[in-house]
Amino acid sequence: MTGRRLIAVDWGTSNFRAFLVDRETGECLDSRRSEAGLRALSADEFPHYCAAQLSDWRDGDRVPVYLAGMVGSARGWCQAPQLEVPAGPAELAAGLMPAPGLEAAWIVPGLKAVRDAHVDVMRGEEVQAFGALALKQLEQGVCCLPGTHSKWARLVEGRLIDFTTMMTGELYHAVRYHTLVGEPSRGREGLDEAGFRQGLAAARHPAGVLHALFETRSRHLHAGLGAESVAGFLSGVLIGTEVLAQHAQGEQEVILVGSPSLNALYRIALETHGVPVVEVESDRATLAGILALADHHESVEGK
Amino acid sequence: MTGRRLIAVDWGTSNFRAFLVDRETGECLDSRRSEAGLRALSADEFPHYCAAQLSDWRDGDRVPVYLAGMVGSARGWCQAPQLEVPAGPAELAAGLMPAPGLEAAWIVPGLKAVRDAHVDVMRGEEVQAFGALALKQLEQGVCCLPGTHSKWARLVEGRLIDFTTMMTGELYHAVRYHTLVGEPSRGREGLDEAGFRQGLAAARHPAGVLHALFETRSRHLHAGLGAESVAGFLSGVLIGTEVLAQHAQGEQEVILVGSPSLNALYRIALETHGVPVVEVESDRATLAGILALADHHESVEGK
Repeated sequence: MTGRRLIAVDWGTSNFRAFLVDRETGECLDSRRSEAGLRALSADEFPHYCAAQLSDWRDGDRVPVYLAGMVGSARGWCQAPQLEVPAGPAELAAGLMPAPGLEAAWIVPGLKAVRDAHVDVMRGEEVQAFGALALKQLEQGVCCLPGTHSKWARLVEGRLIDFTTMMTGELYHAVRYHTLVGEPSRGREGLDEAGFRQGLAAARHPAGVLHALFETRSRHLHAGLGAESVAGFLSGVLIGTEVLAQHAQGEQEVILVGSPSLNALYRIALETHGVPVVEVESDRATLAGILALADHHESVEGK
Repeated sequence: MTGRRLIAVDWGTSNFRAFLVDRETGECLDSRRSEAGLRALSADEFPHYCAAQLSDWRDGDRVPVYLAGMVGSARGWCQAPQLEVPAGPAELAAGLMPAPGLEAAWIVPGLKAVRDAHVDVMRGEEVQAFGALALKQLEQGVCCLPGTHSKWARLVEGRLIDFTTMMTGELYHAVRYHTLVGEPSRGREGLDEAGFRQGLAAARHPAGVLHALFETRSRHLHAGLGAESVAGFLSGVLIGTEVLAQHAQGEQEVILVGSPSLNALYRIALETHGVPVVEVESDRATLAGILALADHHESVEGK
């Protein structure tokens, strides 16, 4: 049943992404993506949608499917309870939940941290963090996974020991589209790098991010910040604030695991602080992470 | 023309508030308010709306009108260019701009701070800060004026020497109504004090506000934060972050100038840090500030 191929799926709130992977070489043989994220589907549509998308790759259900991301949340296909940190690919494999209604398909459980002073959750980024380590042939490191809810994950001996979510991406969107401050940026495409660098500098304001965000408006009115630079400035303030808060916790190298465009912005922000950066493209990290997990799954199944 | 009465108007983005005041006693003789803020009116409607609202108080244009707030901005009645700090009631009086189309009516100019490392603007809060000082018979102090864009103003010898805007209120609204994190709070009224106090504690998280906001969600999922406490928690995170950032700049008494409900929340946040608090209700501060300004206006006009 295991064969030489597997299918890795990253299914989030607003996107569905699937990859057909050669297990020996790690090569991606084919991929497809759609905007059929969780928001677009009702609970009973998941198995049908998934089967329809993947049937020509599956060779009659013989190619296994691993599904990571919000698909395992309460509003997804089937809730796969998150595992406590620390955890590695072996624990994730042991915690895989069969996807109801589809043969040889498993949902990755995700991770949580629950302590008095820190409560946090992730779904999908744990797979990418393990994949990034595997691709870089590392056993430990700090991964930054930028996005709607950026994750900063600390890994030791191949296991994820702790992590912190930063609401950077979602806040960027909320401020840009739903406050007075973001108004001049609406209807404009692209991100101006000069504005981004000004925002990074503003993130160091002693009054912190609640003030620095407002400088988007005051500088637009009185210090020559053009409408074309407003989106970049906002992004710089928020990413700068994120990096400042995380950088305060160490100076080691950071492994960036995101899209090329987000990685580029975070690289600028981190290098401003003299932090060395290694980049991994997030889809490649997903593939590598699912491969690592599937190896453990086989050994679990083989018992 | 000056007589024994004046009319103070606080005209903002979403509200119109007018007060008929006895100049000798400072007593508010009558007041009216509406939701005809700047957003609800086009440029040429301002003089007509204002005249219609106030005609029965004006005794044939003999009672002077002073208008403070966003009414003096580019999107208001007529732009009254902001004055540079430091400035006191005398400078505001000298910078009053006649309101086009209405006899004996003046727009208060507002203040700005423009330096390389700090750019900021206010309209209306400067009047409240001067009023609060007058009501408390003080010559100096730190005023916190909570709201959509909270202002922290430093006053010395009766003049406002510097200030900082914190985007707390607008961010609260954007996060509550336009992010995943705020979702459980929607459609619920009121603010839960227990949730607010939990949010204040979360504001001290070493990863800062971008993470603390996300704990609203992770604690809702895994640490028993009920849907009824989500709005309070968000408010506690944001107000706690604001107070932490400002408190880092001194330990002196803070004069709170806001609505009774906002003052109560900020009092809790400040007292958590051992900062002594004095409260002034913001409408009373507006009246007292306009009275102080009008006294200087008379002496200007008398020259």
